[in-house]
Amino acid sequence: MIDKVLKANEEFTQEFEPKKMSHMPQKKLSIVTCMDTRLTGFLEPALGIERGDAKIIKNAGNTVAGRDVIRSVAASIFALGVEEVMIIGHTNCGMANVDPKKLESAMEERGIDPEEIAKVDIKEWIGAIDSEESNVIQVVEQIKSSPLIPDDVPIHGLIIDIESGELKVLVDDR
Amino acid sequence: MIDKVLKANEEFTQEFEPKKMSHMPQKKLSIVTCMDTRLTGFLEPALGIERGDAKIIKNAGNTVAGRDVIRSVAASIFALGVEEVMIIGHTNCGMANVDPKKLESAMEERGIDPEEIAKVDIKEWIGAIDSEESNVIQVVEQIKSSPLIPDDVPIHGLIIDIESGELKVLVDDR
Repeated sequence: MIDKVLKANEEFTQEFEPKKMSHMPQKKLSIVTCMDTRLTGFLEPALGIERGDAKIIKNAGNTVAGRDVIRSVAASIFALGVEEVMIIGHTNCGMANVDPKKLESAMEERGIDPEEIAKVDIKEWIGAIDSEESNVIQVVEQIKSSPLIPDDVPIHGLIIDIESGELKVLVDDR
Repeated sequence: MIDKVLKANEEFTQEFEPKKMSHMPQKKLSIVTCMDTRLTGFLEPALGIERGDAKIIKNAGNTVAGRDVIRSVAASIFALGVEEVMIIGHTNCGMANVDPKKLESAMEERGIDPEEIAKVDIKEWIGAIDSEESNVIQVVEQIKSSPLIPDDVPIHGLIIDIESGELKVLVDDR
């Protein structure tokens, strides 16, 4: 795949006029969302977000697993002028349907040492969620309650329909 | 900003024909990259990646801060058929120019309790990096050396020029 990507990149750069842009997001917005392949190249147009508009943070299930999301949101606020945060989950999220037994089998089949698997609670480690909506509400709370995030930054919670692209507000933090 | 986003979303959904797609990435690829606002809506076309093609994981500085990136990459491999991973840093990354004193002042000005700031090594906590290129090489090593990532999945390291979009390969893991 790397050859195909490099070829596509060569074609892109032949056409693209190099452009110097600010690293400050013009809409003063950070978005925390899922790595899902159906959101790739889809979330941005569905939200009217263009290049230069917003920071986008993505992981499996838009969860707070460890400190990575909170430190990224903090960096966007303190160093990059972000004034508003949106946590955006999506319907039909793979992380809401994790079968730990199946996952462990898949890992063993790929040669992962069973002793390493046994060291972790696999469902917790992989960041499985109970439901897409309750997860968004919980992540909003986790970020809001961090002592390293300012109280005056609204943290909204939303969910996007993965088929239609329609947003629903779950937490309106105005 | 939430009103503007909801308005843009309403306009989008009026035009967009709902579409059911597979959640399996068609290019069997996961990309780990930065939340930078100049990569929003830019990285995908620069790589020839379209909706449905790839998982995209993003944080501040495409670093491994805690376990979040590794568990997201693992989920994409074991549950979603990913066979190749690309770590893509970019030139002129804000995380390579973190001034801890300036960051601490900004946090205090925004009302963060100095005692909470004192509890962490702020440069380490925020995920500051020494250089964009050495960080990519280090992240490739961190992911490859995880006992929960299969040995047979190539983990490539690349850097994208934030002005021209040109990719440079730093680690070709074939």
